[in-house]
Amino acid sequence: MRMYDIIAKKRDHMELSAEEIAYWIQGYTKGEIPDYQSSALLMSIFLNGMNQQETADLTMAMAASGEQLDLSDIRGIKVDKHSTGGVGDKTTLILGPLVASAGVSVAKMSGRGLGHTGGTIDKVESIPGFNTQLKKEEFIYNVNNIGIALAGQTGNLVPADKKLYALRDVTATVNNLSLIASSIMSKKIASGSDAIVLDVKTGSGAFMKDTEEAFQLAQEMIRIGIGVGREVVAVITDMDQPLGYAVGNSVEVIESIETLKGNGPQDLIELCLILGSYMLLMGKVVDNIEEGESILRKKLSSGKALKKFEEWIAHQGGNIGVINDYHLFPKSEYIRPVIAKDTGTVASIDSERVGIASLLSGAGRITKESQIDLGAGIILQKKIGNKVKSGEAIAEIYTNDASKINEIEETVLSAYKISQQPVQPRKLIHGIVSKEGTKRF
Amino acid sequence: MRMYDIIAKKRDHMELSAEEIAYWIQGYTKGEIPDYQSSALLMSIFLNGMNQQETADLTMAMAASGEQLDLSDIRGIKVDKHSTGGVGDKTTLILGPLVASAGVSVAKMSGRGLGHTGGTIDKVESIPGFNTQLKKEEFIYNVNNIGIALAGQTGNLVPADKKLYALRDVTATVNNLSLIASSIMSKKIASGSDAIVLDVKTGSGAFMKDTEEAFQLAQEMIRIGIGVGREVVAVITDMDQPLGYAVGNSVEVIESIETLKGNGPQDLIELCLILGSYMLLMGKVVDNIEEGESILRKKLSSGKALKKFEEWIAHQGGNIGVINDYHLFPKSEYIRPVIAKDTGTVASIDSERVGIASLLSGAGRITKESQIDLGAGIILQKKIGNKVKSGEAIAEIYTNDASKINEIEETVLSAYKISQQPVQPRKLIHGIVSKEGTKRF
Repeated sequence: MRMYDIIAKKRDHMELSAEEIAYWIQGYTKGEIPDYQSSALLMSIFLNGMNQQETADLTMAMAASGEQLDLSDIRGIKVDKHSTGGVGDKTTLILGPLVASAGVSVAKMSGRGLGHTGGTIDKVESIPGFNTQLKKEEFIYNVNNIGIALAGQTGNLVPADKKLYALRDVTATVNNLSLIASSIMSKKIASGSDAIVLDVKTGSGAFMKDTEEAFQLAQEMIRIGIGVGREVVAVITDMDQPLGYAVGNSVEVIESIETLKGNGPQDLIELCLILGSYMLLMGKVVDNIEEGESILRKKLSSGKALKKFEEWIAHQGGNIGVINDYHLFPKSEYIRPVIAKDTGTVASIDSERVGIASLLSGAGRITKESQIDLGAGIILQKKIGNKVKSGEAIAEIYTNDASKINEIEETVLSAYKISQQPVQPRKLIHGIVSKEGTKRF
Repeated sequence: MRMYDIIAKKRDHMELSAEEIAYWIQGYTKGEIPDYQSSALLMSIFLNGMNQQETADLTMAMAASGEQLDLSDIRGIKVDKHSTGGVGDKTTLILGPLVASAGVSVAKMSGRGLGHTGGTIDKVESIPGFNTQLKKEEFIYNVNNIGIALAGQTGNLVPADKKLYALRDVTATVNNLSLIASSIMSKKIASGSDAIVLDVKTGSGAFMKDTEEAFQLAQEMIRIGIGVGREVVAVITDMDQPLGYAVGNSVEVIESIETLKGNGPQDLIELCLILGSYMLLMGKVVDNIEEGESILRKKLSSGKALKKFEEWIAHQGGNIGVINDYHLFPKSEYIRPVIAKDTGTVASIDSERVGIASLLSGAGRITKESQIDLGAGIILQKKIGNKVKSGEAIAEIYTNDASKINEIEETVLSAYKISQQPVQPRKLIHGIVSKEGTKRF
């Protein structure tokens, strides 16, 4: 087999075999196939497409490119949740204890990554003492005994994706559904989950700005799931404004605790309930999502979900005192309110700009080496549909970097659009894609 | 300007500006733009195409990537001839003195290159003493005084093409008309010629196996000529069997001398007359090609063309004794006739296989470091339409490598197809493409 012939085949609109795709991915991961041949193939894939079978084969070849977690020692169906990424998305922190309290095992591997805020691993590290470096035996023991554990990803999970993503990023071949979908799904499959609930975001703060494209990406991932024999459901959700109010690390953990206490923002609760209901359904704990939602609501109102959160923190060495004393969290030195200049109704909040403001505050990572400021971030005080008066605070900035505070303030201000007209709120859930088909709301 | 944006633009079917193309070619030549970005762009160009303006801009950017010859000290219109490459093509050796004897200045830069035989520079070096390393002043002096000079290409002519071709070769992006055409035309333009006669070959021994594709390539090069303001005419000629009988180095020089003496093979003479007539027309020595052909026939029959050949050799230090004593040429030790096994008529001769036989004999170069055996090669004795009897020789092999002689013999034999049916000879000239349009014969 020769890489040249594989490129020529895709260039000429032909279908690649599973062997050809595996030859490419293995050879590229090992460094035997050079970047310039991979980028020529990537552009052929971008322009000529991959069909369902090829995309499934690519996913499995990538999943097989490095270590694959074996979670067979964990009892029950392992249901994972994955979000395509948004601003203020702290659902994992809430959903983990919430669905664990309802009987679904949560064996969560998570990353740090680059972004507007830290990854889930960074966020929980704002809880003093919380240990994310569990040994495999501890991880499995915790899941089997209390129903939940969270650990940092090992280094060698899907190395093909790391290398390919870096190449796609500089050769204008990122934005292709087969490539995006196989990148996401290969990581979920290598992480050993049996069933996956996907939260596919759309809107100003999402990778997929266009709702129709978000549906297409979801459909692509469902097709992969069918192709590789995993249960997958995708919920298409709105990211046209940040989720909840808090964007950062400790501020998001605090908002998550408030949500588990029953005081969460409406959009965050609604999203957790629908994603959680599907997790319960796929974990075969309930027969339909209405039943799932009813159980989850009870777990919140009875305090069982919060109790599970406390148990989880305790089992990973964290200080459970944070639940009732938020002063135990890292906090930034400077707090600056962002003051509205106009009176009216919030018509839109550009999530990406809020994300940039969060990054500027120190809450995110620009390069792998960046140090995250766990206490930094942005707390919105107004969301779409809220009335605002000139002179009133619309958000608060938390940072240790006084030199950036004016720039952050301007960035947050520019994210808000205040209208004199009444504003119709956008719906949060745009639809559901599963192997049964696509439902649009 | 960023290479990423240039790739994305072509990926999205947009037209690249002259500045963007120049940025790419300059950056890539200097090593500032990596192979993997160039290959992604090449694949986008391959799949989405380049229009006439982009192809002209690419040609000029490549021509400008290295040294550009200044032939302004040479009097008159500099007309160059370029062949897309075939087996047994020695037209340059004949056309040079032929059109020079008719008053067109021939300032020929030529290469060695890889192939079934050496390049023109290798071939003339089979004439003892012939010096192809003329200084620029000698080169110009010779053209101005006797009308002809030949020198080896300097190292730095169109470095972008060398680098890009090597990349295209391993990324399945060779066979695109814009890229092929701009590669050829950039070299001709950097060589300083005012007008160019292109010999675009089609058939089994040509790069373009398909005649329609050969016409398209010719049209692309004519469009480039229009775009960059150079006179260009293309003749589409047949390469479904080797040109003439001799394939090698000294054997091709001997056949060229025979042709200048008036004893040349029919196809070789016919090709030289049509290409030469266009060279005379573009050099403004005649008003139409009929007049050109008439003059060239007289130069051959009067011995003026042969005289010019002698003058040319003498001016470059070669032994003019070779003209009447072919024993002065290098000659291989082993000569083996290839014996026909069937009786019938030659229906076809696979030029590419004859070329491979020539390469095996030692007449060509596989890598840049290969040593050419100037005396080696293949001399055909039968061509398409000739009758053959079983046991009769159809070709002769010349080589110094006795170990390869059986393989060469089998290769030549397998190139011949002997038919029991009468055979219609293929026409040699398929058509002419010029800025006036396309004529098919």
